[in-house]
Amino acid sequence: MTEKKSLPNRRSFLETSGKFSAGAMTAGMIAGGLFTGSSAMAHTARDPKKKLGVALVGLGSLSTKQIAPALQKTAHCRLAGIVSGTPEKRKKWATQYDLPESSIYDYESFDKIADNGDIDIVYVVLPNSMHAEYTIRAAKAGKHVFCEKPMATSSEDCRKMINACREAGKKLGIGYRCQFEPHHLECMKLAADKTFGDLKHITAGFGFKSGDPKQWRLNKELAGGGPLMDVGIYALQAYRYLADGEPEAISAMEIKTDPVKFAQVEETLNWSMKIGKVSCSCQTSYGFNGINGFHAYGTNGHFGLKPAFNYSGIKGTSSKGPITFPQADHFQLELDDFAQCVKNDTPTKVPGEEGLRDMLIIEAIYKSAATGKTVTPVAFQ
Amino acid sequence: MTEKKSLPNRRSFLETSGKFSAGAMTAGMIAGGLFTGSSAMAHTARDPKKKLGVALVGLGSLSTKQIAPALQKTAHCRLAGIVSGTPEKRKKWATQYDLPESSIYDYESFDKIADNGDIDIVYVVLPNSMHAEYTIRAAKAGKHVFCEKPMATSSEDCRKMINACREAGKKLGIGYRCQFEPHHLECMKLAADKTFGDLKHITAGFGFKSGDPKQWRLNKELAGGGPLMDVGIYALQAYRYLADGEPEAISAMEIKTDPVKFAQVEETLNWSMKIGKVSCSCQTSYGFNGINGFHAYGTNGHFGLKPAFNYSGIKGTSSKGPITFPQADHFQLELDDFAQCVKNDTPTKVPGEEGLRDMLIIEAIYKSAATGKTVTPVAFQ
Repeated sequence: MTEKKSLPNRRSFLETSGKFSAGAMTAGMIAGGLFTGSSAMAHTARDPKKKLGVALVGLGSLSTKQIAPALQKTAHCRLAGIVSGTPEKRKKWATQYDLPESSIYDYESFDKIADNGDIDIVYVVLPNSMHAEYTIRAAKAGKHVFCEKPMATSSEDCRKMINACREAGKKLGIGYRCQFEPHHLECMKLAADKTFGDLKHITAGFGFKSGDPKQWRLNKELAGGGPLMDVGIYALQAYRYLADGEPEAISAMEIKTDPVKFAQVEETLNWSMKIGKVSCSCQTSYGFNGINGFHAYGTNGHFGLKPAFNYSGIKGTSSKGPITFPQADHFQLELDDFAQCVKNDTPTKVPGEEGLRDMLIIEAIYKSAATGKTVTPVAFQ
Repeated sequence: MTEKKSLPNRRSFLETSGKFSAGAMTAGMIAGGLFTGSSAMAHTARDPKKKLGVALVGLGSLSTKQIAPALQKTAHCRLAGIVSGTPEKRKKWATQYDLPESSIYDYESFDKIADNGDIDIVYVVLPNSMHAEYTIRAAKAGKHVFCEKPMATSSEDCRKMINACREAGKKLGIGYRCQFEPHHLECMKLAADKTFGDLKHITAGFGFKSGDPKQWRLNKELAGGGPLMDVGIYALQAYRYLADGEPEAISAMEIKTDPVKFAQVEETLNWSMKIGKVSCSCQTSYGFNGINGFHAYGTNGHFGLKPAFNYSGIKGTSSKGPITFPQADHFQLELDDFAQCVKNDTPTKVPGEEGLRDMLIIEAIYKSAATGKTVTPVAFQ
């Protein structure tokens, strides 16, 4: 059995989980009642009205500025614990969020979280190369796991993470926040409904000019790769959830203009792919600012978002006019969705298999760039 | 001696001809006094105030709707003759533009243009595969030649055309109209002046949804290729005149979704290139509308045009605000420039060598797409 067959595709997930209607979803979100499932088969949380406890592993910028504030707004989960190697951070967070001493861990004591009934979900927000270890340890501790993108730094690790959660009977979700954002959902709907005809081509890119040359993102051991793993993955995701299928061919080119700063990871990467009858051309870079969006071209018009991948300020345009929805907190949306999937034992639309699929494609992109040859499906199954 | 060394690059042409200052040029154009050279070394035209006579070869849509009207506005040349295989067209044009019988030719009688002292320049506006023959015949008839893009359908033909004009001691210019357009000139200046820092990446694309499946553009024998030759060449040009150098590597992917309509030429092509420290990702297609522009990303900001390649309505944006110039008639500009180059015996900035260079790159793009391998400089010298 090939990998292709063993991984359900994105749309089949959406259809299974009945969550593809962007219109309905958006209306729900605007009303604040997002995904209020009718089932109350809560396995982890006995009381379906109870907010599930989330422990954040890694208290860097993303946790500090985005995720912790989002967890103050979530309806179905709440910040209930932290894991950090820095005593000052632990102390500061404990005070700021009124966390009990029993829910505060360092990396050595982390496995004791197994005994903490107040923690239902562990959200892994560590450097990429640490995602696998902490996801597996969390699963072994009997916790559901939500893990930031990229899921890991290799498809091998992704498979280990999926297996660990499966063996533990716990859910695994990947932090693909845009899959919950109203403008992105509308674009998925426009693609699926063929509002602009059959899609033919998608341009997508995300990059920024990286600062500190000593940051972990430029360290291959910690980051696994460069901008492709970090932000290019958003362009890859956008293409995949619009074209909705399996890449049949991938052609990539890497461009390095600063071999000192980018000694370990790529600086800029272009790649083209083909999924069915929809091609794409994508870029990612740590070398410059300004690329942040996608545009989809169909037989009867075109649409897209720019900027598409920021935490807020998403703007949509189309050949029929602007695409406008209220701005939303992406982390609030993804966490409330995952919490409800846990409560109701329904599948998440961003499972580990979705992260694995991206990682297989990322590996194929790197392979194409390294060899200067088009990579065909056989190579990334 | 390699091809690379034998072809002067674009900027060296600009510098030689002293026409790189977009600001000065634009000011001149706005004042209506574009390129009033101080030299009066007119070889062809004894009276420098005389408008040079232009004969149009091929009276299709481009000649009818754009070039003939432009020749009513030019200061340095005028419509003086026509070449067409269709008696009705010849009659209609003769009446409409008050052309003498002695300046009207069909394809058989065309060579007699050698005896027509009223014709200085032959403008070849035929299907691509006929450019070489009529350029060479015009040169042999002792006329300067202006030829529509793409210059020909092979680099071999481009070389023959260059040689024919060289042997005849006549000028050869290629219809790269955007190189005369104020917004494009401003972008060249922004790139050269490093207004947005060192350029790092350029995205560029041009395509449209082609209609009639029986049109010559889909016939490989007449067109030479598909959208890359026809409109993708604008994206290629934009990249080249912003990055200003020789491609070191080219990676391309072709995508065909309608193998019946596009049996002979490509439907969609993506390509990436690297010139020095500036990469690009480009697209062209006959399969969909909406891609028409470029955007250049530098270390301190970004700028671009969208739409960039239409005959009018060019719009510019940048991270510092809009790029706005009066709309101009691109054909009027390119023809007045070429006429002055002829009058003053100065080099055109769009010589046959510029067309040859594009053709070499186009051949490399096709080769990369066909082989699925990155093409390096050796392969297109």
